[in-house]
Amino acid sequence: MAVPIGTEELAFRAAKELDICGIPSSEGARKIQSARRLAIERPQDLAPYIEHTALKPETTRQAVITLCEEAKRFGFRGVCVNPMFVEEAKRQLAGSMCIVVTAVGFPLGANLSDTKAQETKAVVSKGADEVDMVIPVGALKAGEYPAVFDHVKAVVRAAGGTVPVKVILETVLLDEYQKVLGCLLAERAGAAFVKTSTGFAFVRKSGTFASGGATVEDVSLMRKVVGDRIGIKAAGGITDFLTAREMVAAGADRIGCSASVAIVS
Amino acid sequence: MAVPIGTEELAFRAAKELDICGIPSSEGARKIQSARRLAIERPQDLAPYIEHTALKPETTRQAVITLCEEAKRFGFRGVCVNPMFVEEAKRQLAGSMCIVVTAVGFPLGANLSDTKAQETKAVVSKGADEVDMVIPVGALKAGEYPAVFDHVKAVVRAAGGTVPVKVILETVLLDEYQKVLGCLLAERAGAAFVKTSTGFAFVRKSGTFASGGATVEDVSLMRKVVGDRIGIKAAGGITDFLTAREMVAAGADRIGCSASVAIVS
Repeated sequence: MAVPIGTEELAFRAAKELDICGIPSSEGARKIQSARRLAIERPQDLAPYIEHTALKPETTRQAVITLCEEAKRFGFRGVCVNPMFVEEAKRQLAGSMCIVVTAVGFPLGANLSDTKAQETKAVVSKGADEVDMVIPVGALKAGEYPAVFDHVKAVVRAAGGTVPVKVILETVLLDEYQKVLGCLLAERAGAAFVKTSTGFAFVRKSGTFASGGATVEDVSLMRKVVGDRIGIKAAGGITDFLTAREMVAAGADRIGCSASVAIVS
Repeated sequence: MAVPIGTEELAFRAAKELDICGIPSSEGARKIQSARRLAIERPQDLAPYIEHTALKPETTRQAVITLCEEAKRFGFRGVCVNPMFVEEAKRQLAGSMCIVVTAVGFPLGANLSDTKAQETKAVVSKGADEVDMVIPVGALKAGEYPAVFDHVKAVVRAAGGTVPVKVILETVLLDEYQKVLGCLLAERAGAAFVKTSTGFAFVRKSGTFASGGATVEDVSLMRKVVGDRIGIKAAGGITDFLTAREMVAAGADRIGCSASVAIVS
C-alpha cells in the first residue's frame, strides 16, 4: 500500500515544480488584513466574515438594492455582485462600511487573460473594492502552470495594486495536488486570497446534479498551503450557521453566501 | 377564465413595447444562410446542423484537439469552445470546412457590455467564425429593454459585420413574454441567430438540480417570433438523435451539443 503523502510534502513538491517552470516566487502579493479572529459564539458574530452574494444570471437591479440594504442592516463585510451591478451597489453602499466585491472571468475562467484584465480595469473604474477571478481550470489540470500564473498576474496588475484579488480555484474539479498548485500559483502571482469555488460548478451524482461548493477539508488544506500569508474565502453551498462557523474554524477569512441573513439570524 | 394569448399577439404587443422604448426596428441584421433543410432520416443527416461543443471549465487543450478531430471526421458544422481555445481550434481545423464558434459574456451574461464587446474583438482576432453571447438576463426580467438591446448591439458591432452573432436568451429563466421580447431585441440589434440556452443554468427541482436546456416548445416559439428572418440554435441537454431531430423539425438551424458523436452514430 502506498504511504499517503502529507500536505507539506505536496506543497514542497509543487513549489519545486513551479520553480522548474520558471515561475517567480513572489510578485509582491497585496496582503490584506485578515478578519479579526473573534470567537464565533452567536450567529451574528459571523457578519464581519460574510460577503452577501447575488451572482445568479437572473438577478435584477432591485434584488441588488435589497442585497445592499441587508448588508448594511446586518453589518456584513460587503456584497458580491456581477460586474453589471457594481455601480449600483457602490451607490447603495456609499457612506457605509460595506465593500463591493465582484467577479471577473466568472464562473468558467476559460476566457482570455486579456479579457480578464480589461474586465478588471472596468470594474475597478466602476468602484469595485475587491475582485474575485477564476483561474483557467483546464490549464491547471493540463499542467500549463505558466498560463495559470499569467491569468492571475494579468488581473492583479490590472487591479492596480490597491484592489485585492481573490483567486477562485474551483476545488471540486481538482485533485489534491492541483489544489496545492493552485494556491501556490495564486500566491506567487500576487493574489490577496484564494477562494474555493464559484458556486456554479455542478457535478453529476447518481443521475442528478449536485452543487460543488466549499468543503471544510478544502479550506483546511488551503490554510496549510498558504499559511498566514494570504487570505482564504470559502464560497458555494454554505447555507447554515454551523457550516459557516466550521469554515471559519478551518481557516476561512471570508464566507461568500446568499443565505447570509438566515445564517446570522 | 382568461383567454390564452397566442404567440402572434404576444409578439405584436412586445414589438409595440419596444417601439415605445425607442428601440429601432432594425440594425441591419447580418443574415446567414440557414442550413439546407434536408430530411433528417438517418443520424448522420444531422451532422451539418451540429456545433460540437466543449465549454466546461475543466476542458483541456487536448480535449479541444480531440473535439476538432471528431468534428472533421463526422462532418459537423463546427466546434464551439471557450475563448482560451479559439486559437487552438482554428489551427486544428485549418483547411477543413468546420467553423470555430465561441461564447462571450458566458454563461451568466451579467458583465458589462464593454467587456462583452472587447471580448468579441479579441476572439474574432484569434479566428472565431461566429460568436455566441448571453443577454443580461436580469435586465430583461426587470424590463430594462434598452440595456439588453445595447449589450447585443455592442457585440454585433464589435464582431464587425462579417462574423455572425448568436444571442442566448437562457429560456429556462424566462416567461413566455420575456422569450418573445428577447427574440425581438436580438433581431433588432442585428443578431444572426437566437439561441435557447447556455447549458449552465441549473434549476432546483424537488431538492436536486436539473439542467435547464433547450425544449422543443421554446424552439417552436422562437421560430414563430423570428419567422425566417434569423436563425435558431438549440443547445443545452440535447443528448440523443430523436431529441435533436425534433429540435430541427421545430425550427432549429443549429444544434449545440457535446454528445454529438453519439447522436450521429
